[in-house]
Amino acid sequence: MKKKYPLGQIRRHLETGPIVLVSSAWKGRANIMTMGWHMMMQFKPALFGCYIWEENHSFEMIRRSKECVINVPTVDLVDKVVGVGNCTGGKVDKFEKFGLTPLPADKVGAPLIKECYANFECQLADARMISSYGFFIWEVVKAHVATRPKNPRTLHYRGQGDFMVAGRSISRREKFKRQNL
Amino acid sequence: MKKKYPLGQIRRHLETGPIVLVSSAWKGRANIMTMGWHMMMQFKPALFGCYIWEENHSFEMIRRSKECVINVPTVDLVDKVVGVGNCTGGKVDKFEKFGLTPLPADKVGAPLIKECYANFECQLADARMISSYGFFIWEVVKAHVATRPKNPRTLHYRGQGDFMVAGRSISRREKFKRQNL
Repeated sequence: MKKKYPLGQIRRHLETGPIVLVSSAWKGRANIMTMGWHMMMQFKPALFGCYIWEENHSFEMIRRSKECVINVPTVDLVDKVVGVGNCTGGKVDKFEKFGLTPLPADKVGAPLIKECYANFECQLADARMISSYGFFIWEVVKAHVATRPKNPRTLHYRGQGDFMVAGRSISRREKFKRQNL
Repeated sequence: MKKKYPLGQIRRHLETGPIVLVSSAWKGRANIMTMGWHMMMQFKPALFGCYIWEENHSFEMIRRSKECVINVPTVDLVDKVVGVGNCTGGKVDKFEKFGLTPLPADKVGAPLIKECYANFECQLADARMISSYGFFIWEVVKAHVATRPKNPRTLHYRGQGDFMVAGRSISRREKFKRQNL
């Protein structure tokens, strides 16, 4: 079960650097791409940056619709994640091919992917670096996160087909200044 | 022992989203900051983007020198990583305070941090997004990576003083198209 999640805390699920699935919609068709080059950029409003290769079928869908959803998968979805990243939405319906379920988002036209534990609805905040770097700056306008587990087993890509799976958690909370938490 | 590492493969150590230590030098002083908001942006030349808060003491040192080193620590350094992130270089010499060893870099004035398993020497490639977003685009001009372990136990920050430690590795190499590896 997912709940609405505070936008000021989405770093918890994005700053660790997981592989994500980016869903998009344009002219009645939806698509998904696998993406690993992204980062948090600001807490409030919540800004998130990512690189999208212009050769990806999703590139024009995302650039034109100015919207997407960032979906965070866990290790049980690894074969779907790899499959999505190794075929093109120009030829197949990836939701159908990989048994992923599109759900309507609240604030954007792109669908949420039900099977992912977290979904972040995004609206384009700055397009100035798209042409030179393929770099999109998004405002995250709504977040949905599963209530458990607290620390999901996300996937982190190393290249060459290798993934690191999120391991144990450690806290050093007592060593932080309060304003740095 | 570290070796020169191919620039086209640095994603292996950066795309997973580790917390890094950024070292800098300006007017005879060196400093270190802890940083988690960064991403790969291009393979060749190797481009890497990161956010630096303008309130950080390192911000002006890095902006003026147009250079830095991105150093990747492992879990054994967690208390130094937290310590570095919770004091200011305006008041202390962080190398001395945390027992970290500065080593001369090859192509930049900023020092490498010996205790980190990987060091990436960076020169500023694009300053256009610094004033609006604190966003620096770097060209990685030299990489040094320890020869082992193959998959270091990096730290991935979740906020609130919590870190995820890099866990097990899994390969799906056989499911990738060759050009996507």
